[in-house]
Amino acid sequence: MDLLFLGTGAGLPSKERNVSSIALQMLQEQQTIWLFDCGEATQHQILHTTIKPRKIEKIFITHLHGDHIYGLPGLLSSRSFQSGELPVTIYGPAGLKEYIETSLRVSKTSLSYPLLIEEVTEGLIFENEHTQAYAKKLDHGIDSFGYRIVEKTRQGELQPEKLKEAGILPGPIYKQIKENSTVTLDNGKVIKRTDFMGPDKPGRVVTILGDSRYMPQLSEFTADSDVLIHEATFDGEDQQLAYDYYHSTTRQAASLAKQAGVKKLIMTHISSRYQGEQQQKLLDQAREIFPNTELAHDFCQIEIPSK
Amino acid sequence: MDLLFLGTGAGLPSKERNVSSIALQMLQEQQTIWLFDCGEATQHQILHTTIKPRKIEKIFITHLHGDHIYGLPGLLSSRSFQSGELPVTIYGPAGLKEYIETSLRVSKTSLSYPLLIEEVTEGLIFENEHTQAYAKKLDHGIDSFGYRIVEKTRQGELQPEKLKEAGILPGPIYKQIKENSTVTLDNGKVIKRTDFMGPDKPGRVVTILGDSRYMPQLSEFTADSDVLIHEATFDGEDQQLAYDYYHSTTRQAASLAKQAGVKKLIMTHISSRYQGEQQQKLLDQAREIFPNTELAHDFCQIEIPSK
Repeated sequence: MDLLFLGTGAGLPSKERNVSSIALQMLQEQQTIWLFDCGEATQHQILHTTIKPRKIEKIFITHLHGDHIYGLPGLLSSRSFQSGELPVTIYGPAGLKEYIETSLRVSKTSLSYPLLIEEVTEGLIFENEHTQAYAKKLDHGIDSFGYRIVEKTRQGELQPEKLKEAGILPGPIYKQIKENSTVTLDNGKVIKRTDFMGPDKPGRVVTILGDSRYMPQLSEFTADSDVLIHEATFDGEDQQLAYDYYHSTTRQAASLAKQAGVKKLIMTHISSRYQGEQQQKLLDQAREIFPNTELAHDFCQIEIPSK
Repeated sequence: MDLLFLGTGAGLPSKERNVSSIALQMLQEQQTIWLFDCGEATQHQILHTTIKPRKIEKIFITHLHGDHIYGLPGLLSSRSFQSGELPVTIYGPAGLKEYIETSLRVSKTSLSYPLLIEEVTEGLIFENEHTQAYAKKLDHGIDSFGYRIVEKTRQGELQPEKLKEAGILPGPIYKQIKENSTVTLDNGKVIKRTDFMGPDKPGRVVTILGDSRYMPQLSEFTADSDVLIHEATFDGEDQQLAYDYYHSTTRQAASLAKQAGVKKLIMTHISSRYQGEQQQKLLDQAREIFPNTELAHDFCQIEIPSK
């Protein structure tokens, strides 16, 4: 599981940073990729990565500002050209359906795969055997959501040492033991799975927030995340500007990370007004408050290790 | 006056060619730039040129397929961010207004400049003191237009030699003579402008066609163009494929150029299936029929000299 940042700029593209998009790659775990936001030219950024658009099965849109959605119609169309067949579900605020359906209808685009668009409210918005996704409203002038992606606890590994000690030798029986809570051996003995399994593996938590003012009350929603992605559109000293424009500063992002007890903070949505050394200053400001902070740049990839 | 190709690919972007857009730069003549089509990431391509989005005042859309329009909302928004104040007029087929207005409304984008959207039919669609623009329907399955941009004949230059021969010495009188059909000199003599002016300068003609099947009957609409821009989505040998997909081949583009007696043909909308030497083959096929042909590539710039 890793995060691949496709666009890390604010408002409009620059040569250095494209507008917002992040890929959560779960190729080993679920053979799938989820996108978070899809600013214009996200499909162009993807051309410079190993991402196959047909592997993208879910797209979570934080809010409907152009720099977060204008890449959707193009990505959806190109995925169709490239023989994408698996369905795609897009989650996001009300209005998303009208935007996508109008763009596809007017441009006479018919997709080669089923497209579902789910306009979300707060709470659990998706669950499968591996994962849950929760949405939470932020403070951005228009509806903006944060998404908390929770990997479910996975069963521990079978312990072959213990099985051999108990005289159970390797064979198809191992698979039976792994898949059933009790198994009767050929000699009539009933054994319990729990006696031969390692401890459960706790899942990882990745929380990706859309554009927002600082919300200390988000410490519950973001609590204990392995990675928290928070916007940092403004320098730590520009708190009033950040408030006026419904954005956050570096220090505010770091404060939330600290309160929520997350493991790592990644700041993104960086304005092109900050160049070179000024970007280091942004990072330093956050690290004073929350040391395990990174400043995202286009194409940076952050591994999220298993626990 | 020159043409700057911003995107020369077909259907979907590749690393080599972005989707369609062409800038007609008339900076010396009218201090303005007109765009023809605006595929996704046209604003990103512009970042690598000297084009200032605030100078773009007209955008002509040939047809509504996504690879020709998905860059519009982003370009219009960014132009607003970058303090564009001059009005923009967009011309194109019915449906364009709904697409643009929905995209801007859903994304809560308010522009800093007036935006006019004119859904066109055939004929003269625009005229100012310098230029006329004509539209013509093509054959592409959906409404697709070609645009013929006709620069008006400009007055010749004042001939100082002739004036001096007639004893009229340089001074403010030269400006009066240039601007009036007759002028009475201080000595009471009446002189005619036409006696002291060089020949009129004929205007240039640039014809930019949208996606289309081969239409020999376009030789009238494209006649005598200084530059004809024609799609060439298919190899000269794939005439049936071109017909089936409502596109043209290299040889068809060249045939129209020949029939119409244009000065130069530029082929664009090149599929990414043609790489390296295959592109040279496309060009050779066309040049066999019409020698003064070029194959466009992203960022190529073609000067259109005065006559």
